[in-house]
Amino acid sequence: MPIQYNEFYNEQTGLTVGIKKQLFHEVTPYQTVEVFETDTWGNLMTIDGMVMLSEKDEFVYHEMMAHMPLLTHPKPETVLIIGGGDGGTAREVLKHPSVKHVDMVEIDEAVVRASKLHMPAVGDFDNPKLHVKYENGLTFVDGPREVYDVIIIDGSDPVGPAVDLFKRDFYEKCHTCLKADGVLVSQTESPFVEHYHDSIRSVQRAIDSLFPIAKLFLTWIPLYPTGMWSMSIASKQRDPLSAEVLEIIDTRIATFADTLKYYNKDVHAAAYALPGFVKQMLESE
Amino acid sequence: MPIQYNEFYNEQTGLTVGIKKQLFHEVTPYQTVEVFETDTWGNLMTIDGMVMLSEKDEFVYHEMMAHMPLLTHPKPETVLIIGGGDGGTAREVLKHPSVKHVDMVEIDEAVVRASKLHMPAVGDFDNPKLHVKYENGLTFVDGPREVYDVIIIDGSDPVGPAVDLFKRDFYEKCHTCLKADGVLVSQTESPFVEHYHDSIRSVQRAIDSLFPIAKLFLTWIPLYPTGMWSMSIASKQRDPLSAEVLEIIDTRIATFADTLKYYNKDVHAAAYALPGFVKQMLESE
Repeated sequence: MPIQYNEFYNEQTGLTVGIKKQLFHEVTPYQTVEVFETDTWGNLMTIDGMVMLSEKDEFVYHEMMAHMPLLTHPKPETVLIIGGGDGGTAREVLKHPSVKHVDMVEIDEAVVRASKLHMPAVGDFDNPKLHVKYENGLTFVDGPREVYDVIIIDGSDPVGPAVDLFKRDFYEKCHTCLKADGVLVSQTESPFVEHYHDSIRSVQRAIDSLFPIAKLFLTWIPLYPTGMWSMSIASKQRDPLSAEVLEIIDTRIATFADTLKYYNKDVHAAAYALPGFVKQMLESE
Repeated sequence: MPIQYNEFYNEQTGLTVGIKKQLFHEVTPYQTVEVFETDTWGNLMTIDGMVMLSEKDEFVYHEMMAHMPLLTHPKPETVLIIGGGDGGTAREVLKHPSVKHVDMVEIDEAVVRASKLHMPAVGDFDNPKLHVKYENGLTFVDGPREVYDVIIIDGSDPVGPAVDLFKRDFYEKCHTCLKADGVLVSQTESPFVEHYHDSIRSVQRAIDSLFPIAKLFLTWIPLYPTGMWSMSIASKQRDPLSAEVLEIIDTRIATFADTLKYYNKDVHAAAYALPGFVKQMLESE
């Protein structure tokens, strides 16, 4: 009998992944972290029963989470990643020659350990520019003042330890941590799933009231519910769709363009084209 | 015990939909047509175990299949739909004031019957401009010569009766049926699923050799495998990304813009931004 992993976003509707065997299972102080060998997508990590990444599809999420904000910033040198314990977002961030220092604040060291053990190609943990701190991202952002060029909020879904990553108070603190031309990005769930709408609107309204530029963009993630995923971006100065951003993308990614499987200049701009139902969702109460 | 519908695109990996009950089941001379009441997506039609549409997500597929080619054509009056028996593509086509005559050539009358019975809001079957013919689309296109402004190939997946809809011979005949400024569109599966790659490339190379303009575009479809779906478009004169097309979209959809839930001018242009892995797939052998 085949073993299957199921993630249902509504009653009995969702994703099913064929499993060859379980490679990691740990109930940590924060959550349950698991890794499975799958039939199709390489090794798959789940947290509390929700897909975080697979070896074969992680390039989409990590390229979009890293390059969208870093290309929007004129010269990112210091980057803070909240969550992101699998290491994939940091790996993409570290491809930018301008980056000097990356703080990755992951609440749960088991996520890093599971990734190093079972997804060794995802992270770039030996990079000396990367500083991993096992702390709570919510309290971490209480400290620094105008320290970071870019903040990437790479948390899990708005249940469990990540629920406060979707609230205004957290974005106020992030705003304080960012320099005068800082850029922030956060994963904000699927617009196709009704019970995520409040979380998406909560983040969008928080950043819209705190930053002069706040937008939603979309990407395909085949192992996330419905395949349509939104990310929210906020910027203190530059608009991600401005000519000054778009005109230099090709030049700035030239040293690592051959490593990219998803992100490019066209994808950067196109990600902001929102279908009518997404616009309506954002505007409704 | 919950009843579930499963569609696996690779071994045991794919989509699971919670089912309340089966509403329609018929083994026709061509295929097995079923309709289920689901927990989340309204009523769902499958053909040979593959999702065709649900009442709640069909707007994406039908808006993109209809409006992309019709807006690319300067003044579509005569439209041929191959397949499309659920009626959703025709419904969107018939919103265009310029359209005078739509031939819908569906091989299997059971699809139309199932849609009328269990998805009454999807079709616009009483519209006097719509002419439904229960014929094989492959032989139908042997007849007409330069009759249609737009051809929409709204078939099922490349197994069973639809397999020849992905071959060059069929596109040669479609080319002959189209007028001198004709436009064609065809659904061409998910770029995230490796065993679809040959079908996507087969259609792209056929239209690229027959038409001066041939492109791939992408859309999100939450109930299709991986959520990322490709469509192929070919045009005898106008490029879908040309200024003459983009500049008049808002004006031309003005009479029905309030009925659209997905398609708009931004989405039209953005759909052609291809991630790196999709470009690589198209270029490889």
